[in-house]
Amino acid sequence: MRFAKGHGTGNDFVVVPDFDNKLDLTPELVAALCDRHFGVGGDGVLRVVRTTAVGESQPAEWFMDYRNADGSLAEMCGNGVRVFARYLIEEGLTFGPEIAIATRAGTRTVRAEADGQLTVDMGPVAVLGEGAVEAGSQLLVGLAISVGNPHLACVIDAPVEAIDLSSPRVLEPAGLAAGVNVEIVRLVGPREIAMRVHERGSGLTLSCGTGAIAATVAAAWSAGERPDGWQATPWTVHVPGGRLAVALGATASLLTGPAEIVARGHLEASWLARQRPPAGVGAA
Amino acid sequence: MRFAKGHGTGNDFVVVPDFDNKLDLTPELVAALCDRHFGVGGDGVLRVVRTTAVGESQPAEWFMDYRNADGSLAEMCGNGVRVFARYLIEEGLTFGPEIAIATRAGTRTVRAEADGQLTVDMGPVAVLGEGAVEAGSQLLVGLAISVGNPHLACVIDAPVEAIDLSSPRVLEPAGLAAGVNVEIVRLVGPREIAMRVHERGSGLTLSCGTGAIAATVAAAWSAGERPDGWQATPWTVHVPGGRLAVALGATASLLTGPAEIVARGHLEASWLARQRPPAGVGAA
Repeated sequence: MRFAKGHGTGNDFVVVPDFDNKLDLTPELVAALCDRHFGVGGDGVLRVVRTTAVGESQPAEWFMDYRNADGSLAEMCGNGVRVFARYLIEEGLTFGPEIAIATRAGTRTVRAEADGQLTVDMGPVAVLGEGAVEAGSQLLVGLAISVGNPHLACVIDAPVEAIDLSSPRVLEPAGLAAGVNVEIVRLVGPREIAMRVHERGSGLTLSCGTGAIAATVAAAWSAGERPDGWQATPWTVHVPGGRLAVALGATASLLTGPAEIVARGHLEASWLARQRPPAGVGAA
Repeated sequence: MRFAKGHGTGNDFVVVPDFDNKLDLTPELVAALCDRHFGVGGDGVLRVVRTTAVGESQPAEWFMDYRNADGSLAEMCGNGVRVFARYLIEEGLTFGPEIAIATRAGTRTVRAEADGQLTVDMGPVAVLGEGAVEAGSQLLVGLAISVGNPHLACVIDAPVEAIDLSSPRVLEPAGLAAGVNVEIVRLVGPREIAMRVHERGSGLTLSCGTGAIAATVAAAWSAGERPDGWQATPWTVHVPGGRLAVALGATASLLTGPAEIVARGHLEASWLARQRPPAGVGAA
C-alpha cells in the first residue's frame, strides 16, 4: 500500500492513492495511519480515487475522499484540497494550471500559481450575526460566519497569543454552542491579520483554511466592508503554521498558500496486517 | 534520501540509512525530519552507518547514530536500539539471532526472540540512594537510580494516572534537581508493574526503555531485593504505549519488547532542498 505525506502551512495529511477504489479504508485504518507514534501521523487522510470509480458524476477526474484523524468522514478541507492538488501535480496525474477536484461538498477548482502556491475557491461565505465566546477568563464578542462549516471569529486589539484558546465556550448564538471553530484575529497591517484557531474536535491547530477565511471576513467587517461589497484586494493571514492569502467575493472565497509533499513510500505489509481485525472479528 | 519510520511501544523514530557516512545530518535536518507536521515526525533519528565508516573500532558491523528530536546527540536509547535492530533484520543487513550494535555508549547486543520481540542488554544499574520529588501538590519519595542516565522512580499505592506528572520537581538528591527522568510506579500483580514517565527534555512520553528498567529496580527494591541479589525472573512493565519486560542482574539489565517498522520510502528532493540553508548562509 503506497502513501505520501504532505502539508499546507503545517496542516498535514497522509495521502493514499487508490485510483480504482479497491481499498477498504476503514475508520480503524484511518486512525492507525494518522497516529503520530504508532503509524505515519497526520491531521487526516486524503484518499485519491477516480471520480467514476466512486460512482460520482462530478466534472472532475479525481475525487478527494477526506477523512478526519479519528476516521470520520469530512466534506472539505481548505488545506487538504491544496495538498491533494500538489500530489496530483507531482505524480503527473493532472494538467494545470486549473485542476477540478471532486469532493463531498461538490467540485472545487484549484489553480497552480506561477510562484508555486495553490489557490482554491472555497465558495461564498455567509455572515450569520454577532456572537460571544468565553475564552479563559475573558469574554469576547465576534462574528458568526459560515464557510460551509460554522465559525465564530473575534477581532481583538492585543496579541492573539494573549488569549487562552485552549477551551473556548461559545455563549451566543446559542445554536453554535454545541460546536464551532473559534478564531482570534488581530489587524497587524493594511489588509494583514494574525490569527489563532481552535477547531472543534481538534483543538488548537497550526492552520485552518476555512478559519483563515472566517478571520478575514471578521477583519473586513470590522473595517466596514459588507458581503454585498467585499473588496477584491487579498488579505494576508498569518497562522501559527505559516502564511495564507484570502480574497473575498460575492460568489467566491479564494484561499492561496503553499502545499508540499514531504515524503513518499509504502506501508510495511507486516504493519498493515496488524491493523486488520482477525478473521471473524468485526470492527467494533 | 531514503528513510523508514518505526517504533517500540510508541517511542518512534525516523530511520535514515547512510551506510557509507556520506550524509551531512545537521541538527537542523534532524529537527526538520522529526517535526510531526512539517516533516516525517518522530521522537528521534536513528542513522544506520557502517562502524568502520565513522572510524569506530567497536566489534559490530553497524553503528547507531542516535539524535534527539531537537538535533542534539544522544548516547543510547533502549527503544531506539530495538527499532534499529528490527530495521537491520528487515533489510537483510544482519544475521541473527544475536546482533551487535555499536553506539556512543559502547556496543550493545540485541537478541531476536522466537516470538518476534527484541531483547537488549542495557548493562548494570546503580542505586544512588533515596530521593524526593514534588509532583503536582504531592510529595513523593523514591529511589535515585542510574541506568547510564539518571532516574528517580517512586513506587506508590494508587493508580499511576492519579499523579500530576506534567512538571515534577526533584527535591533530593540535590545533584539531580537540574535534570532527571521521573517514574511513577505501582505494583499491579506478582512481578508486574504499571508506570508513567516524565523524561527530561521531552516531558510525558508513551515509553522509555531506561525508565522501565529504573521502575523495575524501584519495585524490586520495595520487595526487598538488593543489587547484590537481584532475582533473575523477569518483571512485566506496563507503559502508556504498551508492554515491556525487564530482567535485572548484577552485570546486565535485559529489556524485552516489540519493535516494528511502519513504513519505508524516500524524502522528496524538493522538501530536502528547502531544508538546506542558502549558499553562503551558515547554520546559526
